[in-house]
Amino acid sequence: MSINLLKGKKGIIFGALDENSIAWKTAETVHAQGGTFVLTNAPIAMRMGQIDELAKKTGSEIIPADATSEADLDNLVAKSMEILGGKIDFVLHAIGMSVNVRKGRAYTDEKYDFTTKGWDVSALSFHKVLQSLYKADAMNEWGSVVALSYIAAQRTFPDYNDMADNKAYLESVARSFGYFFGKEKKVRVNTISQSPTPTTAGQGVKGFNNFISYAEKMSPLGNASAQDCADYTVTLFSDFTKKVTMQNLFHDGGFSNTGVSQEIVDKFSE
Amino acid sequence: MSINLLKGKKGIIFGALDENSIAWKTAETVHAQGGTFVLTNAPIAMRMGQIDELAKKTGSEIIPADATSEADLDNLVAKSMEILGGKIDFVLHAIGMSVNVRKGRAYTDEKYDFTTKGWDVSALSFHKVLQSLYKADAMNEWGSVVALSYIAAQRTFPDYNDMADNKAYLESVARSFGYFFGKEKKVRVNTISQSPTPTTAGQGVKGFNNFISYAEKMSPLGNASAQDCADYTVTLFSDFTKKVTMQNLFHDGGFSNTGVSQEIVDKFSE
Amino acid sequence: MSINLLKGKKGIIFGALDENSIAWKTAETVHAQGGTFVLTNAPIAMRMGQIDELAKKTGSEIIPADATSEADLDNLVAKSMEILGGKIDFVLHAIGMSVNVRKGRAYTDEKYDFTTKGWDVSALSFHKVLQSLYKADAMNEWGSVVALSYIAAQRTFPDYNDMADNKAYLESVARSFGYFFGKEKKVRVNTISQSPTPTTAGQGVKGFNNFISYAEKMSPLGNASAQDCADYTVTLFSDFTKKVTMQNLFHDGGFSNTGVSQEIVDKFSE
Amino acid sequence: MSINLLKGKKGIIFGALDENSIAWKTAETVHAQGGTFVLTNAPIAMRMGQIDELAKKTGSEIIPADATSEADLDNLVAKSMEILGGKIDFVLHAIGMSVNVRKGRAYTDEKYDFTTKGWDVSALSFHKVLQSLYKADAMNEWGSVVALSYIAAQRTFPDYNDMADNKAYLESVARSFGYFFGKEKKVRVNTISQSPTPTTAGQGVKGFNNFISYAEKMSPLGNASAQDCADYTVTLFSDFTKKVTMQNLFHDGGFSNTGVSQEIVDKFSE
Repeated sequence: MSINLLKGKKGIIFGALDENSIAWKTAETVHAQGGTFVLTNAPIAMRMGQIDELAKKTGSEIIPADATSEADLDNLVAKSMEILGGKIDFVLHAIGMSVNVRKGRAYTDEKYDFTTKGWDVSALSFHKVLQSLYKADAMNEWGSVVALSYIAAQRTFPDYNDMADNKAYLESVARSFGYFFGKEKKVRVNTISQSPTPTTAGQGVKGFNNFISYAEKMSPLGNASAQDCADYTVTLFSDFTKKVTMQNLFHDGGFSNTGVSQEIVDKFSE
Repeated sequence: MSINLLKGKKGIIFGALDENSIAWKTAETVHAQGGTFVLTNAPIAMRMGQIDELAKKTGSEIIPADATSEADLDNLVAKSMEILGGKIDFVLHAIGMSVNVRKGRAYTDEKYDFTTKGWDVSALSFHKVLQSLYKADAMNEWGSVVALSYIAAQRTFPDYNDMADNKAYLESVARSFGYFFGKEKKVRVNTISQSPTPTTAGQGVKGFNNFISYAEKMSPLGNASAQDCADYTVTLFSDFTKKVTMQNLFHDGGFSNTGVSQEIVDKFSE
Repeated sequence: MSINLLKGKKGIIFGALDENSIAWKTAETVHAQGGTFVLTNAPIAMRMGQIDELAKKTGSEIIPADATSEADLDNLVAKSMEILGGKIDFVLHAIGMSVNVRKGRAYTDEKYDFTTKGWDVSALSFHKVLQSLYKADAMNEWGSVVALSYIAAQRTFPDYNDMADNKAYLESVARSFGYFFGKEKKVRVNTISQSPTPTTAGQGVKGFNNFISYAEKMSPLGNASAQDCADYTVTLFSDFTKKVTMQNLFHDGGFSNTGVSQEIVDKFSE
Repeated sequence: MSINLLKGKKGIIFGALDENSIAWKTAETVHAQGGTFVLTNAPIAMRMGQIDELAKKTGSEIIPADATSEADLDNLVAKSMEILGGKIDFVLHAIGMSVNVRKGRAYTDEKYDFTTKGWDVSALSFHKVLQSLYKADAMNEWGSVVALSYIAAQRTFPDYNDMADNKAYLESVARSFGYFFGKEKKVRVNTISQSPTPTTAGQGVKGFNNFISYAEKMSPLGNASAQDCADYTVTLFSDFTKKVTMQNLFHDGGFSNTGVSQEIVDKFSE
């Protein structure tokens, strides 16, 4: 499907770790559609990943940045404009991490230093990215910023822990900042609420495989894959969706509006 | 819990069929809380039910009315004010029926005469009740109208068939009419989105028992019973909730905001 | 932006009346993106409109159909497959009309024959279209059906009258039918909740121009135009959005998630 | 309306500052309905307020607690059970404060130390309160916890600043913790999304009076007052609402589901 949907568009992509990452697939897809971009990730994530390979494949430069650091983000934005030769058209924020989850703390037994760190990385970082872009006047008119979210922001999934609250905060930032970025710079800001996706990050969550299987059976079209998400994301970066803003967009094969599927109910007749 | 929560309040209760009905439990509970009311149901439903017994128990009169008939409703409203000695404080609409479901037609194979009949009985009847009350100026200020709904209005439950669409229409009527009834008469209009409840009507739905069991496991506090619903309803009729209007209120033990429960996911690890 | 986004896709477009119609703009845009289609409208609407001109421009055939008539729809679906040479990839339902509005009946003074007619045309017709496609097995896998809606389905706009309830029903049909069409045929079904749009139809609503002006000031990116909507619609017909289904997608410059804008509040300081 | 709705119920009320506070009105109302409670507030807020007067009036003791301090909360919970002679039936969390707002920082120019402090006080404190209650096994079965929220959690109100994001987090905590507290202890957790209320705290927000006037005109029943909110809150503490949990309940005279009111549109015809 290479139709130059993003011809001439320039952007920044956060969060590509390895080929399972949604950000990785998005980078490949943007590249295939004629867009150019800078890749960025936290220094520590970069050591664990294979981002160099992606950079080579897509002719991109890499700028390390800790998304919780205003200085790093300001530097990233400035350098990106230099490298890309002008203002930015699109940004993907695909960052999330719960220390409580990693350390095995239950939601009813949070350690609040962990909670604060996870919130800063997963939720407040999105505000920091937006504020950095906004203050530098770095976005072109009708530019588009997308962050990845999850339906745990609306409904409780017991193993998702404090990431649920972080995603709720993240989606609120999209609305709040979207108002000002829209009014003043004609930039749209949205979140995609994606199916559970077997990324390297996602797989850390307890019981994840059972959950993927459950979600697959609850979704009339099945779970959306990382590649599906990349495809959807490029439509939101394109000029075809200029008036979509401040939305949380479910991209999940219908999971969000399925109360129950026949397969699930049938489990209860056995 | 008889504390005279509804002392001096006068109302109309639609839809009491037998002691499993939410409307039946509500009538008993309103009575226990010091309210008085007229009971009404469709002539045909009355023949099948035991509404006389309820009337005796609660010292109420019965006025038959087909809720799809404007003439019947106008008569009901006029007679109720006569019997109760003044304007109305509360109304419960607990009416719903899908001919497609009864006749075993799938949602993808609707017979549209059936669909229209079911919509008229289950959804439009609520507008007719409200319009009849409104035109007769029959409601006291700060009066309260409640209709029963179900979460199928928001999400698909395959066996719920066209009742889902009817409930979506019903909830919209609550908002739309609630605006005018609020502005002009200070009357509130709400819907309660109740757990699946093993009423005589509910039990007609295919696979209902399996579904009840599923919903029980998905709801952190368990399913809300008919009596629970009656208790909740009387708070909405009381003077403690005067500024709640145009809302759809989930009364479901937490089902609506539970993405999945541990018990459900565990079924997928076997 | 002609990039062949819909190359090889075949469809049916309902509701093109004149060049102000969203359906008209969508037809032009689909054509520019390489798609082919059959145009259809009610016989009476066709006499008032200039659909022949659109057909000529886009190389399309016209098949008149009353969207409330199952026979007409079955004929439309069969003939469309004949003309287009195979199954259908996309369908646009852009149909709505309230007799109560036309006849100047207030929402609190509905004439129920009018209400039923408006519901049949505006809401049930969407079910009829879907059922006709489903029974004829007329959709290709990963096909896409879109209907136009309005935020009055969620919140009350006093002049929108019974169209609010019709749109709530329509959106419910998208979810309910989307479940079955997804599970069984891998077809997605969505609604777009569009900004108020000065179409010839929209202009019939009382106070419409004031309202357009209000909505413009409430929307951080301004109201979405008919052309904007056409652009968005083609992304939903494309292969980039395969896993989006059963959704109501706000396309409104941010109106839906703006509680109030500065311009509106400022009106209250005067 | 003293009908002993809360006879025998014991609780903790956070956030009573002065007689304009919702928490103050709630304390008075709970007292009138036969409930007993401990009052608590941050030491600094207590110096500014008149909480001693309220304590005297309602026969309550005061335990100062910084709601961001786990130690203070653990002490509060333990002492409250001692004073009240057993487990807790109800808790009101009415705490919120944005340092960015106080210091006049725009949403697009946040100082992140301020943001973090405001989040800790306004949002994370709710998790801390719940976790402290949960770990101490301090709640009776069918107990009820309520926190106050605002519709800015769903839609943007430009002057509400980062409190919007804090309220989104707070509401998510209610859902997430409500799941576990429901499953394991049969305790319900909800938020009330209250009309803008001219409390001493609320009045600090820029343009607040204009906004109150706007909201009044948008709400079919008018804004809900602090006393209205207190009345509603006691129904949620009572045994009549045992199956309501994990909900965000709009208590706003219909504001949340009013797209626009006639009075507002009329401003645009002048």
